[in-house]
Amino acid sequence: MFSVTVREHMMIAHSLRGEVFGPAQRLHGATFVVDATLRRAELDADGIVIDIGRATAALRAVVAELDYRNLDDEPALTGINTTAEALARVVADRLAGALGDDARQLDGMVVTLRESHVAWASYERPL
Amino acid sequence: MFSVTVREHMMIAHSLRGEVFGPAQRLHGATFVVDATLRRAELDADGIVIDIGRATAALRAVVAELDYRNLDDEPALTGINTTAEALARVVADRLAGALGDDARQLDGMVVTLRESHVAWASYERPL
Amino acid sequence: MFSVTVREHMMIAHSLRGEVFGPAQRLHGATFVVDATLRRAELDADGIVIDIGRATAALRAVVAELDYRNLDDEPALTGINTTAEALARVVADRLAGALGDDARQLDGMVVTLRESHVAWASYERPL
Amino acid sequence: MFSVTVREHMMIAHSLRGEVFGPAQRLHGATFVVDATLRRAELDADGIVIDIGRATAALRAVVAELDYRNLDDEPALTGINTTAEALARVVADRLAGALGDDARQLDGMVVTLRESHVAWASYERPL
Amino acid sequence: MFSVTVREHMMIAHSLRGEVFGPAQRLHGATFVVDATLRRAELDADGIVIDIGRATAALRAVVAELDYRNLDDEPALTGINTTAEALARVVADRLAGALGDDARQLDGMVVTLRESHVAWASYERPL
Amino acid sequence: MFSVTVREHMMIAHSLRGEVFGPAQRLHGATFVVDATLRRAELDADGIVIDIGRATAALRAVVAELDYRNLDDEPALTGINTTAEALARVVADRLAGALGDDARQLDGMVVTLRESHVAWASYERPL
Repeated sequence: MFSVTVREHMMIAHSLRGEVFGPAQRLHGATFVVDATLRRAELDADGIVIDIGRATAALRAVVAELDYRNLDDEPALTGINTTAEALARVVADRLAGALGDDARQLDGMVVTLRESHVAWASYERPL
Repeated sequence: MFSVTVREHMMIAHSLRGEVFGPAQRLHGATFVVDATLRRAELDADGIVIDIGRATAALRAVVAELDYRNLDDEPALTGINTTAEALARVVADRLAGALGDDARQLDGMVVTLRESHVAWASYERPL
Repeated sequence: MFSVTVREHMMIAHSLRGEVFGPAQRLHGATFVVDATLRRAELDADGIVIDIGRATAALRAVVAELDYRNLDDEPALTGINTTAEALARVVADRLAGALGDDARQLDGMVVTLRESHVAWASYERPL
Repeated sequence: MFSVTVREHMMIAHSLRGEVFGPAQRLHGATFVVDATLRRAELDADGIVIDIGRATAALRAVVAELDYRNLDDEPALTGINTTAEALARVVADRLAGALGDDARQLDGMVVTLRESHVAWASYERPL
Repeated sequence: MFSVTVREHMMIAHSLRGEVFGPAQRLHGATFVVDATLRRAELDADGIVIDIGRATAALRAVVAELDYRNLDDEPALTGINTTAEALARVVADRLAGALGDDARQLDGMVVTLRESHVAWASYERPL
Repeated sequence: MFSVTVREHMMIAHSLRGEVFGPAQRLHGATFVVDATLRRAELDADGIVIDIGRATAALRAVVAELDYRNLDDEPALTGINTTAEALARVVADRLAGALGDDARQLDGMVVTLRESHVAWASYERPL
C-alpha cells in the first residue's frame, strides 16, 4: 500500500458546546495544521498515488472555505460541534468531493488536524 | 475511524540487559516523548473521541509514576528489560487502566515513545 | 551567555484591524505555541539560568490569562491590534512581571509566538 | 503489535517523466528524510522488535547507495520514475534484503520519504 | 526588537566544487526549507513588522527562481559554489530587492536554509 | 554573518544537586538533542563556514564521550551540576578543542541542548 500526505493549515474561531469542554465553551480559536494522507494499493502509470501539486491544491481549496472564519457562524456547520475530530471528518468528506474523479483511483484517506504541539485528531475513511 | 493523540514526556535512567545493546548496557538515560493515540469508531454525543484534557491528565498520571526515576530500581518493572518498545506497552496498559470507564468507549490505543529525533517505538493494542 | 527556553501554548479568537490584513480582518483564531527564552550572562549557584519548572509555571500563568478567549473582548488589550508581534510583546512584558525577583538576575528575554508551521513572530527585550 | 522506527536521509538529483509533473520534469533534486518502521507482533527475548543500532545501520547502508547521486543515471533505477512513492518502495525492498535473517522475525515495514515540511510519501509491505 | 519569520522551500540539483565536499562533488540535490526572518525595532501603525502574506509572497517569488532547477546551469550563479551558506546569502540579497520599499522599514534579515533534519545554514545581514 | 548548525544527540543518566530541582534530585536521565551552531563573518575559499561533515564528526566525537553514561560518575564532571545549561558549556568548550585549527577561522559558537519538546538550554561563546 502506498500513500502521499500533503500539509496545509487554517486559522479559525469557534466555541464548543458541552460541559466537558470547560473553558473551551468560550469563544476562542485554533490554528489547525491539516495533513491529508491519500492511499492507493498500486501506483498509476506515472508512478504516483496522486500528483502532490493536485492534492495540495484540492486540500487548499477545502481549507480555504473554513480559513479565517468564526465556525460558530458557518451555515454549513450548523448543528456540528466543531471539535478537531468532527472537523477532520468535514475536511475529509469535502476533500473526497474536491478530488472528483481522482478520488476513484484511491483506496482511502486520513485527515489529521493538529491543534498544538501536544494534541491532534484524525479521521480515516475509505474512498 | 476517529482518533485523538495527546503528548507528554518523561525523563528516566535505566540500563538494558543483553549483549545486543552494546554501550546501552551501561546505566544511561532518556527523555521519552510519549504520544498516546486513542481510537473510536464513532464520536460521542459531544462530538469527541475523548476529552483532550481528560486524556492528557490520564497520560500525565501514568507518566508521572515513571518520571524522574531510575527504572532499574522500580519494583513494578522487575524482570522487564525497559526498552522503548517494552515501556510503550507498560504505558499503554497502565493508561487503559487509568482511563477507567472512559476506555470502554474506545476501540484501540497506540502509544509511541520517541527517544530522540531519529528513533522511536510504538505499541498498539485493542481496548 | 546562557539561555533557557520553555514552551507553552494558547488558543485564542481575534480579528485584526487594517486593510493590510485582508481576510484576517474577520473574526478568526489561532493556536500560538509560545516559546520564552530567558538569558543570563553567568549561571547561578545551582548551575542554572532559572529553574525550568519555575519558568514554565510563570509562562503558563501569563498564557492562561489569554487562553480560550476572544482577544477582541479583553479589556486589557483595548487599543492593541493583537498581531503575533504585538502579542509577543504583551507576553514578554507580563512574563517579566510574573518572574518578579527572579527576573532581576536575568539579562534578557525573547518571546516567540508560532502561529503555524510556516509563520512566527518574536519580541526581544532586556531585563 | 510493536514497531520501531529509525530515521536517515539522502540528498539526490533526479527528473520526473510525465506532463503531470510540470516543472519537476526538469532536473532538480531533493533531500529525502527516510523513516523506516519495522513491525513485529511480539518482542524477542531481549525485549525488542529489532536493535535500533542494527536497524539504523541497515537503513544507512541502503540509503548510502542512493545518496549524493543523480538518480537519472543509476542503472538499477532504469525504467523507474523516481517519485517519492516509487523510491519508498525501492528503499523498503532493499531494506528487507539488507536486514537478512533479521527480517524473518518481522511482520511488516513502512518506509516514509519526507521531501519537505509539507509533503511526504509512504510504502507499506509485509515481511 | 521584533521579528517575523516565514517559511518556504525549494528542491534543487547541484554539485559542489572542492575536495572538502567528498561525494557532494557529484551531481546530487537538496530540498532547502527556507526561513526568512525580518527584524524591525518598532512595529508600524498596523502593529506589524511586515504583513506575513506580503513577506511570504516575496520569499516565494525569490525561491521560485531557483526551485526545480539544476543550479550548476543557472547563469546567475556562475562562479558561486552553491553551498547552503552561499545560497542563504543569494536568497537574502534577492529578498531584500524583492521587498523593495518595504525593506526600508526593516532593520535586518536572517535567511536559514535547512538541508535536512540534522544540518542547516544561515546568513544574517542588515537592511 | 554566516553560520552552520549540525545536530547530534546523547542519552545520559544524572541527578541534580539543589532543592530547586525537586524530583530531578533523584537519579533520572535525559536524551539531549545537541545543536552546534558555528559562526563566521565571511565564507572560506570553498564557500563554506566549515564542512558539515567535519563539524558533525567533531560534534559526534565530543558527544560520544558523554553518551550512554551516568554523568554522576564521570571524573571530568566532578563538581559540576550537570544541568542542560552547564552541559551546553561543556559541549561547547570541548567542541572548540575538537575543532582544533578549524576553530581559528570561526567567530563564535552556540550549543543548544534540547531535553524535551518543551524545554531547551543554550550556551554561546566567542572563538
